[in-house]
Amino acid sequence: MPVFTPSLSKLIESLRHLPGIGPKSAERIAFFLLKGNPTEAEALATAILEARMNVKACSRCFYLSDTDPCPLCRDSRRDPSLLCVVEDSRDVIAMERSGSFRGFYHVLDGSLSPIQNINEENLHVEELIGRVKEGQIQEVIVATNPTMNGDITCTLIAKRLKPLGIKVTRIAHGLPVGSDLELADEVTLGLALQGRREV
Amino acid sequence: MPVFTPSLSKLIESLRHLPGIGPKSAERIAFFLLKGNPTEAEALATAILEARMNVKACSRCFYLSDTDPCPLCRDSRRDPSLLCVVEDSRDVIAMERSGSFRGFYHVLDGSLSPIQNINEENLHVEELIGRVKEGQIQEVIVATNPTMNGDITCTLIAKRLKPLGIKVTRIAHGLPVGSDLELADEVTLGLALQGRREV
Repeated sequence: MPVFTPSLSKLIESLRHLPGIGPKSAERIAFFLLKGNPTEAEALATAILEARMNVKACSRCFYLSDTDPCPLCRDSRRDPSLLCVVEDSRDVIAMERSGSFRGFYHVLDGSLSPIQNINEENLHVEELIGRVKEGQIQEVIVATNPTMNGDITCTLIAKRLKPLGIKVTRIAHGLPVGSDLELADEVTLGLALQGRREV
Repeated sequence: MPVFTPSLSKLIESLRHLPGIGPKSAERIAFFLLKGNPTEAEALATAILEARMNVKACSRCFYLSDTDPCPLCRDSRRDPSLLCVVEDSRDVIAMERSGSFRGFYHVLDGSLSPIQNINEENLHVEELIGRVKEGQIQEVIVATNPTMNGDITCTLIAKRLKPLGIKVTRIAHGLPVGSDLELADEVTLGLALQGRREV
């Protein structure tokens, strides 16, 4: 059925590549862009091109930023003795939103994955060791995802960093706030028990 | 928290304006565009700009298309005695997908809405009457949404077209295929009863 004319097909096809956008959503967004305010569509196109041009990984922490070093690395009010290791730039945002961490970050850009053939060399592990060797960092908090890949990445980092004489910690596994004990999976519940603290 | 650098903020802000995209999805898509293949991001930006430039409403049926008249209006295999009236270009696509209609279309570009102050003049009603007056159309099928606004729009169209001596029909209301009678709302069930057919 040749219902969509070429420009429309192309737009819908491009939108469908985006994460979380299915065929129906792609159509809905395409028609929204076509029928809405023209400046809105142009603003989006320009924002994509500009972001693509300006945003690069910070050479120190690998967080995606317009500037190098990134605003986080340049923030002198942060505690230089604490370093939080995350898989992705989006994890940095999640950590910052929590408002609970005031040290620096290091983005690995993924996690070890034997299945996808992602090894130590594909992650920014050497750069992490380099930063720790500078001497200011006293504790590295590993905040990789609570998944198999995140856990083996944590083990690797601990193995590489322990010889340098610093503390390596892992963020706690347990029940998320507001959740229901009854609905928790057994592994999480087991880890929540292991990680119990005196009240 | 100034975590996002300017280009990134702008991109996320633009993405958030899209329908069905919340703040988390906007972030996810933004990082996808930044980290993925650069040609993919460029292709999307170009597709938006090109579609915005090329796609216009067909001057006859108001379906959004690269060409005027649109491919549907130019399709000589269609039945010129049948015209289906819909609210939106997306409804044309839904109808075409059903594969059940081989006539022509007329997009109203909305429906009457006393609350949003959308009157007859804001819809392509005059153009519809003009097309009917050309004489070829024998039946107008009103396929506006099965909502209050869709229904009053249908009533208006029937009132305007009946004096021209043509048949005006409304698509059936009833239970969607695969649904559960037990879960159907009472209005739909009432209309399904009214619209019953001998088997």
